[in-house]
This record gives sequence, structure tokens and C-alpha cells, in this order.
Amino acid sequence: MPRSPTKPLNSTIKIFSAPRFIQAKRDSQEHSDESIKTFINSYVMGEIPDYQVSAWLMATTIRGMSKKETKALTDAMLHSGTILHFHDKTVVDKHSTGGVGDKTSFLCAPIAAAAGVKVPMIAGRGLGHTGGTVDKIEAIPNFNTEIDLDAFSKQLIAYGIVLIGQTGEIAPADKKIYALRDVTGTIESIPLITASIMSKKLAEGAAGIVLDIKVGTGAFMKNLASARKLAISLRETGIRYKKKVTTFLTDMNQPLGSQIGHSLELIECLEILKGLDAPESKDLKELSLQLAAAMIHNAGITKNFATAKKLATEKLENGEALKVFKKLIELQGGDTSYVDDHLKYPIAPIKTSLVASKTGHLKSIEPLSLGLACVEIGGGRKKSTDEIDHSVGITVHKKVGDKVKKGEPLLTFHHHRGQSNQILEIINGLKASCIKISTAKVRPLKLIYEMK
Amino acid sequence: MPRSPTKPLNSTIKIFSAPRFIQAKRDSQEHSDESIKTFINSYVMGEIPDYQVSAWLMATTIRGMSKKETKALTDAMLHSGTILHFHDKTVVDKHSTGGVGDKTSFLCAPIAAAAGVKVPMIAGRGLGHTGGTVDKIEAIPNFNTEIDLDAFSKQLIAYGIVLIGQTGEIAPADKKIYALRDVTGTIESIPLITASIMSKKLAEGAAGIVLDIKVGTGAFMKNLASARKLAISLRETGIRYKKKVTTFLTDMNQPLGSQIGHSLELIECLEILKGLDAPESKDLKELSLQLAAAMIHNAGITKNFATAKKLATEKLENGEALKVFKKLIELQGGDTSYVDDHLKYPIAPIKTSLVASKTGHLKSIEPLSLGLACVEIGGGRKKSTDEIDHSVGITVHKKVGDKVKKGEPLLTFHHHRGQSNQILEIINGLKASCIKISTAKVRPLKLIYEMK
Repeated sequence: MPRSPTKPLNSTIKIFSAPRFIQAKRDSQEHSDESIKTFINSYVMGEIPDYQVSAWLMATTIRGMSKKETKALTDAMLHSGTILHFHDKTVVDKHSTGGVGDKTSFLCAPIAAAAGVKVPMIAGRGLGHTGGTVDKIEAIPNFNTEIDLDAFSKQLIAYGIVLIGQTGEIAPADKKIYALRDVTGTIESIPLITASIMSKKLAEGAAGIVLDIKVGTGAFMKNLASARKLAISLRETGIRYKKKVTTFLTDMNQPLGSQIGHSLELIECLEILKGLDAPESKDLKELSLQLAAAMIHNAGITKNFATAKKLATEKLENGEALKVFKKLIELQGGDTSYVDDHLKYPIAPIKTSLVASKTGHLKSIEPLSLGLACVEIGGGRKKSTDEIDHSVGITVHKKVGDKVKKGEPLLTFHHHRGQSNQILEIINGLKASCIKISTAKVRPLKLIYEMK
Repeated sequence: MPRSPTKPLNSTIKIFSAPRFIQAKRDSQEHSDESIKTFINSYVMGEIPDYQVSAWLMATTIRGMSKKETKALTDAMLHSGTILHFHDKTVVDKHSTGGVGDKTSFLCAPIAAAAGVKVPMIAGRGLGHTGGTVDKIEAIPNFNTEIDLDAFSKQLIAYGIVLIGQTGEIAPADKKIYALRDVTGTIESIPLITASIMSKKLAEGAAGIVLDIKVGTGAFMKNLASARKLAISLRETGIRYKKKVTTFLTDMNQPLGSQIGHSLELIECLEILKGLDAPESKDLKELSLQLAAAMIHNAGITKNFATAKKLATEKLENGEALKVFKKLIELQGGDTSYVDDHLKYPIAPIKTSLVASKTGHLKSIEPLSLGLACVEIGGGRKKSTDEIDHSVGITVHKKVGDKVKKGEPLLTFHHHRGQSNQILEIINGLKASCIKISTAKVRPLKLIYEMK
């Protein structure tokens, strides 16, 4: 049984004043480890209401946390649920802070698994303008993302790859707190992000963690300075828990790859896995190979990163990664014909393009507004109970730096009959704010800023 | 009908993102008047949950508000309910920010009313370590604090004095927000305090407002600098609404007067109204006369403050204030025999004293811990549903600067049989933290720091 015994949460409760705890952070005081533990545990047990936690989250977002506090918070959130232990250094997961068109999990996970990494993915659903891995994989009929932790562990050990959605068993404190942060303006806090990511990843039992921190207008981290701070905080937390943590800072000033939308993104990944990829998918393929290489190297399978990169490329090109992906779908009940025939996905029937208003070089294609546009046409949730339409989305034909000719399509919307007016309105909005064309030459955007 | 028509709240609702509004304050941006109005109105209508409002309250407490924002917030809270209009400059109310043993309302209101001021009191219940006027007056059997605003207005016009508890009709936004601030560490914010006090006082229809801002260890404002800021903010808001606002900064580094506890405080006031007061009530009497004088002068009854003070003293000494107080009790159904015979109140039967540990001069008698001790023995609420025991309390025999002899009682607890162990524990705690005796001479505390 690869789990630690569940601790009785109430063993840590003692007389504790939530208002005083909140005031302490408001006044920039440092919390004791014990008080953080009590606050988090009391919240999970329903003894502290949301409105007190959100006031504290805001105080924390503004005032920050010391390293000691960040560790105590991570610890409290980690221990709020089940913790898996595999005692296996080849168990390595990847996590992305989320971006538009970011679908690297479907590539780096099977590539790394094909090279001998065990990848224990517990993924999220879409949030705000960014899509979710779990929502995307559900475009494959019958794929089951709700298997329990015992089956999860068994599949990981036997097959080296597994993908489920967030479960109440893993870091339930994070689940409650994340939902609250999302609607209270308290997402952009480095200690809160650190505790949220690390508590989940540590609970999965991974020995190594590869973190893809997105930087840019379409990411939570808008600039390199704040992304670097987050990377440091994540690596330091990893060290404290004796985990091998690799951090990437990667670009999110344009969408990643060529497709935005659930089925479209799966198709793009399958094309790459099959060697049929379009030139606009180059950045996605390259980043996925780099992330896979980091996972392979982090797992101790190769002596250096260059060898890992070579091995990753080999596993992609020789079709083994595709086989692993198909096995994953099969193991979790999904219809594998959607892997074999990647043109089988139902895509919304009407195509409407946004075309270049002049000849020149693409200067900007702002990802945040594209992500929001995709949500707007049904390919995302505005509230947690919304149903997702997997068939809609946006194809990106040009990347920053590309030459464009007047009248040439830059984006194509895949939508339903009856959405045409909405699409025209969105396209007008995007023309004004998202797309810029320059007559002068434009340098392509860097893909990877840093890897540490 | 002295009311403004009730505005349909939803007339102002439009597409509005609460998380974005919260983020703006988190990032120190200035809110538009319209967005503040929408946020407050949506909250009152139940369209925005507590947890979003508390996150915003924390951001506001830390980041502050501009004068323009404070005005918009006051406005939004004021217009969330009924606004009374009397068009009478003699309608003047007094408000205190709350302290331990603070019972000036029972003195300055009848004194001012006896001098021709119309006093429209809408008072609060006890909060934290401070008692509430409404709780205290309820020590008089059958006194009704829940009369409606029409009866309130009629009584004010006919008799010049009325006292009710907070009603959902007056500034309901403040009622909801105050309850939230109390438990989320967001009390100590000058713009939030300003909007809370002023929205209620403006809604009462007073032309003049006398504000007693307590300063010291037993008050929300711990130092003169922050109290002065609050006074400025309150006066500025008053000017914007064309109200005459007088602010006092008064001491709360020791309890006011000689009694803490509901019945005991009423007895102390009746003794002053009857000219039977103890020397330890001198500060209470003096402050009440000053506040009454400010109300009289503010109402335009006298040409200068000195004449107002003389008139107030006369109305107290000639028994007219006592008559007005008795009339108030009679008008609202209270048992007036509790006014005639001030020894009629049931007081808890056991007396236990804290005595001086050495001979010298009283250096400190910390009010916060005395207020909390009174709550602890039943004379206050720990949660809003607690019942109050009017019969318990603490008599204060000495004030800072007084000579004390070893073994002489400094405080006397009035409590029930069965509470003796608790009282001994409390006394031990107070000896250690609340009471200090100096062998050197100690200067008495100033009572009034400033009046503007």
C-alpha cells in the first residue's frame, strides 16, 4: 500500500482565534507553523468559514510569506489528505502554471514514459482563460479520469503512466483554497502558488518534478522577474522535501502550438505523435521534447540533459510515445479509435477566419484574449457548472515574426451555425486588441527563457 | 413623511466582475464611484458572496481609499436603505467609537435634549470588549428599542429624544459589512470606519453630529495620529454632506467613569443625573457635559461653546436632564421605577475585590483587559447569539494618578456564586497585566485631547 496513514485532522486543533490570525498577517507578522496548521486544518474541517479564509488570502497576497511560513503552509496542505509514497526515483511528474494552447502534457508524458519515466499525472480542469488537461482528454469518449488512488498507483507501477483529475483525497485543503482564490483576486501570490502546486505534486509521490512556469501576457506571471521568484520558491520547497525539481520559464506572449480548443488540441498532439505536424506546431513540439528530456534526466535515466533530449526525440520519432499514449487511453477505458484516426473528432462545422489587414510581419497575437474568446464560444467554463463544448476552437496559422500577406487568414474559428454574429463581434475585438502587424521585420519570440 | 423614497437597488446593476474589482484594490488602484455602488448594492442584494467582500475589505484595509472613494462608499452604504430627513438644524446626534465604561449617551443625550436639541439615537449592541448602548438600556425592564422609523420620527419631533437599536431599514449595507469586518480583521480601516459611522448618522437625518473618537489601549484607535486621521476623514465627509460635524479625541487608556457592566453603568448615570455621583465618575460627568455642550452649540442653540457648556451644566444640575431621561423611558414603555429608584437594579450578589499589592500611585489600569474580563463573566457577548447578564460587572475605585494604599480595593467584581474560581483567575491575570502601581507620583491622564 503506497500511502501514509491518514492523520486525524482534529488532533492539531486547539484554542485559536481566526480573526487574530488574520490580523497578524494584515500587520505583516510571521505566523507560527502551528497556527498555520491549525488554520488550514480548521478550514478543511469546516470550522472556519470561507469569508475568513479569503480575508487571510488577501492579506497574504499583499503582505507575502517568509520561507518558513511557505513551508508550513505547503506542509499543512500536503498533510490535509492522502500522501502517496513510491520510493522510486523514476516517478517524475510535470506541471505547468497554465497558458493558452498549452497541451504539452499529452506529449511529454508519453515520451518520458516511453523512455522509462513513471508519470503520475493528477491534472486540473480549465480555469479562467486557460484550458484544463482533464477537460481536453475527455474529448476522447469514455476516457475515465476518476479512478481511485489505489488503481492510480497500480497503473503507474505497472504501466508507467496514469492521468486522473483532482480528487478530494489529495490535498483537499488546496482544492478548497484554490476555488476561493480563483474568485477573490488572490491567485497571483508566490507563496500561495508554491504551496498549491507543491502540496499536490508532493502528495502524488513523485521523486522528481518538472515545472513549466509560463511568462507573459497570457500567463499568471506577467514578467520574468516574478516568474523567477516563483521558480526559486518552488525549487527551494522541492529541496526541503528532498525532491528533484527542475523549473522552466517559457513564453506565453503568444499561444503555444497551432490549436486552441479541446478536440483541436488533441488532434494537434496526435499529429505530432504521428510525425504529421504542421510548421505552426514547432514551438509546442520543441517545448514538449525539452520538458520530456528534463523528466528523463530528472529520473536519473540519462547522465546528462543532451542525452535525455536525444532519447526523447528518438521516442517521439520511432512511434513509441504514440504507443504509450494509446495504451494510456486503453487502460482508462477510452475509445482508442480516436487515437488511431485523429480526424474522427467532431469539430464544429463552420469556419470563419480573421485575415491580415495588411502585408507585413506578425508583431503580436495576444494569447489572453484568444483564450477568453475560446471560452466565449463554449470551449471553456465561465462558472464551474458550465458544460464544455469540445468541438469549438481556434486554429492559429501564424506566429510572431512570420510574414503575412494582406487577406491571408491568421486565425480560423471553428464554431456552430448560429454563432456567426458572435464570432464577427469577437473578430472585430481581436483585430483591435490582439493582432498587430508591422511593416518592419519582427524577431520571433523566444520559446524557453530559462531552465534550472 | 420624513423619508426619501426607497431607490430600487437593482437599477444600478450592470455587468461587473467582482474578482476584477477586488484585484483593482489589491493593486492599489482607485475604484470608480459607479463600481463601488455596484459592488455594495450587489452585496446587499445577495449577488456577491461574503468571501468576495471580505477579500475586498482586507485589500481596502491594507491599501486604503482616496477621499473620492470614501465618499462613494459612504454614499452607496447610505443609499442602501431608508434616509430620514427632518430639515431641522436642532436635530443633532452623538456617536462614540466605543470604549470600556463609555456610557456618555445616557447623560449627554438627555442634557442636550433638555436644552432644546432633538437627539435621534440609533445605537448599537456590544461588540468585542466594549458594551453597547442598546444592551445597557435593556437593563430597564420593558424598554422597547425596536420601534419603527415612523414612530421613531414622530417621537423625535414631539419629544426631542428617541433611542432605538440598529434596524435593517437604515444603511443595511453597513449592517452586513460591519458583521463581516468584525470577524475578518478589517475593523481598523479609516475609510471603512468613516463610511460605516457616517452612512448611519447621515441616514438618521441629523443636521449635526458630535463624534467622540476614543484613543488608547482600550480603543480601536491606539494612538493620536490615527485618531486624528479618522477625525479629519469624518469631518471632511460631514462637510461634503453639509452636516455640522464636531470631533472629540478622548482618552481610553483607562475605563471611563467608575462602573463597567450593564446595570452598574445605568446606576452610575442615574447617580450623576441625580447629583449623587462618586468622585470616580468625575471624568464621565465632565466628558458628558462637554459632548452635550457640543451638541447644543452644534444645534445653533447658543452663540458659543462656553455658553453651551454653562447651559448643559444647568440642565444637569437643575434635574431637567433627569426628567428628560425618565420621559424617554416612559415613552418607550420602560419601567420608570428603575429611574426613580436607582438601587432597584438586581446586581450579582457576590463581591470580590482586587486590592493594591503595595502603597503608591496608580500608574495603569488597562481598559481592554477589564472589558474582556466583563465579557468573560457574562456581561458581554462572545458570539452574537449569547445572552447578556445585566447584573454582573466591575466597579473601578481608583483612576490613574490616584494614591493607593496596600490592601485597598482597586476593583470590585460583582458576580454570582459559583463564579469565584473564575474571578480569582481573572484577578490574577489582571494583577499581572492590567494594574500597575508606582512608588513615584503619577500624573492623571488627560480626558480630552482635542475638540474640532
